[in-house]
Amino acid sequence: MLRDYVAGIKPLDDVAMKSARNRLDSLLKPLGSLGVLEDIAARLAGISGKMHYDTTKRCVIIMAADNGVIEEGVSAAPQEFTYAQTINFTKGITGINALTKQFGTDIIIVDVGVNGDIDHPSVMKKKIRNGTYNIAKQSAMTRDEAEKAVMVGIEIAIEAAKKGNNLIGVGEMGIGNTTTAAAVLCALTEIAPEQAAGKGAGLSDEAYAQKIDVIKTALMNNKPNSEDPLDVLTKVGGFDIAAMAGVYIGAAYMRVPVVIDGFISIVAALVAMRLVPLAKEYMFASHASLEQGYRYAADTLGLKPCLHLNMRLGEGSGCPLMFAVMDASCAIMRDMGTLEGNIGEEYLEEIKDADFHIGRL
Amino acid sequence: MLRDYVAGIKPLDDVAMKSARNRLDSLLKPLGSLGVLEDIAARLAGISGKMHYDTTKRCVIIMAADNGVIEEGVSAAPQEFTYAQTINFTKGITGINALTKQFGTDIIIVDVGVNGDIDHPSVMKKKIRNGTYNIAKQSAMTRDEAEKAVMVGIEIAIEAAKKGNNLIGVGEMGIGNTTTAAAVLCALTEIAPEQAAGKGAGLSDEAYAQKIDVIKTALMNNKPNSEDPLDVLTKVGGFDIAAMAGVYIGAAYMRVPVVIDGFISIVAALVAMRLVPLAKEYMFASHASLEQGYRYAADTLGLKPCLHLNMRLGEGSGCPLMFAVMDASCAIMRDMGTLEGNIGEEYLEEIKDADFHIGRL
Repeated sequence: MLRDYVAGIKPLDDVAMKSARNRLDSLLKPLGSLGVLEDIAARLAGISGKMHYDTTKRCVIIMAADNGVIEEGVSAAPQEFTYAQTINFTKGITGINALTKQFGTDIIIVDVGVNGDIDHPSVMKKKIRNGTYNIAKQSAMTRDEAEKAVMVGIEIAIEAAKKGNNLIGVGEMGIGNTTTAAAVLCALTEIAPEQAAGKGAGLSDEAYAQKIDVIKTALMNNKPNSEDPLDVLTKVGGFDIAAMAGVYIGAAYMRVPVVIDGFISIVAALVAMRLVPLAKEYMFASHASLEQGYRYAADTLGLKPCLHLNMRLGEGSGCPLMFAVMDASCAIMRDMGTLEGNIGEEYLEEIKDADFHIGRL
Repeated sequence: MLRDYVAGIKPLDDVAMKSARNRLDSLLKPLGSLGVLEDIAARLAGISGKMHYDTTKRCVIIMAADNGVIEEGVSAAPQEFTYAQTINFTKGITGINALTKQFGTDIIIVDVGVNGDIDHPSVMKKKIRNGTYNIAKQSAMTRDEAEKAVMVGIEIAIEAAKKGNNLIGVGEMGIGNTTTAAAVLCALTEIAPEQAAGKGAGLSDEAYAQKIDVIKTALMNNKPNSEDPLDVLTKVGGFDIAAMAGVYIGAAYMRVPVVIDGFISIVAALVAMRLVPLAKEYMFASHASLEQGYRYAADTLGLKPCLHLNMRLGEGSGCPLMFAVMDASCAIMRDMGTLEGNIGEEYLEEIKDADFHIGRL
């Protein structure tokens, strides 16, 4: 089943991208002077096969789950916060609520493994189990559970796409998940835990050393196979990360652009990319998270974040801001006039030769 | 008159900023985890004296002017483009038109020195003269003209603020103005022309060497006084840069946040800051322009751009995107709930001690 979705992901439409680039080059501006806004517009054409892309309906999917590893003291926050904050999402009072409201974005809250019963009409019940096992002592989950969690993400992304969402953001809520994300990043790339794990909002030096030790122990005891992303998820991952990886795959399968949030989100993107390299073509990095592993993961994926805001909230909070940047890309494609007819005809050839700056040189 | 406005700029309201920080710290998130969004919200409170800021009505002011220095061959584009593009702004077909429309922003087009008559109801007639003199051969303008151009910017910013604009962006249109901006940057900071001037969209190595030579000649012949920003504007500036500097001063005078676009815009911001250092407190950097002098000017101002989009269009095009980021800052301040009452009461003290990550550690 997972194999079918993986096989169903196709490359971008080169012809549509080429047409988009030609149109972008014809617009009333120096060639390439709108930089990344042009790159995004071209990629949206490659994804959708259309010159113009409608970003009006979009959503952020938040995967909430608990992590057994917190019993090792790797988090300054109590596990109960995962449950409390998942409920808070339904009340419209969290950071991601404020940002999705501002940028006209829906929010999809998924309980994929919160430690506690949640029975709320706004929370999708997709619980694999009440949190993973402690990765310092054993595998986080069974391979079957890992695959199930990935499938949860795939199915929710497909449903979101079928409901008309043309942009999908990927967020999370799960105390302890910077530890599991760092472990997954180490397992997939073989960088050292010291490079992958951050001090977060204010772990003491002692607690940080403990976090590094826990990641080392988890990797040593579980021996995840770096060539097998599902094995990595099984042994040192979390239900949130697995389900997020599924969202990237489901979005790519449906040819919907998918936006990465911060550190946990980009590690899940890396898992998805290892399962199916073509998934990367559908991904957009939003903001440069302060977690130190973020940059390494972004470089590995070959993606550059557009926003530098020193954010480290999680919850998918970078996604709505990136949707606004993507709105801008669609706006220039849709609303700008062309050089032809709007600048002295005698200069048209010169302009097409590319080396001028309106308003600059 | 200029002196009165300079003297009229007051510091930010520390009490309001402190209240804003207290509220931000009480919100349902780890302390400081929304990074720059929180910094912006606090600064908006310091500027306005209010906890909540309304960003609904905003504008980008575009100063259009020609530069005599283009007769030295420093621009690949013909001077006529300044005129043509100023007219194109009124047709709604340029990059800044698409972006202001997308982000609900007005556009104010000002002819402060275009080489050609413009008689259009949408273009403000504030022409000082039909373009500056060639700075490689003489002063760009008289000191009186420089002061007049600065006053144009001040008065337009004040008028925009009086009409209810709560955010003001600063853009430009003027073939040749990366050369004058680089010369002004060199004069104010004493960096070398090689560091200040960029190759733009595609100057050949030869043309770039020529541009550097022209800047060196202009600095050597005119000997601008680095301690006297008006002298710098007079000798190696442009009407656009002078008027933009005025916009920063007028906005600060009216206590309205003002957004910097790219290279020309940040050099004008530096001029304003040298005229009145407090003006800096009202400025926000939008995007990191590709022009190499941008970073140096930003570092000198002590401002960090939020958006990394490899843009180099000018026209104020980075401003509407930054307005969206500022909208986000206001949204978190306005719409987020507090920790108190929304997270287990037994954790409140722990949370206030600051060292946890909801959703992260």
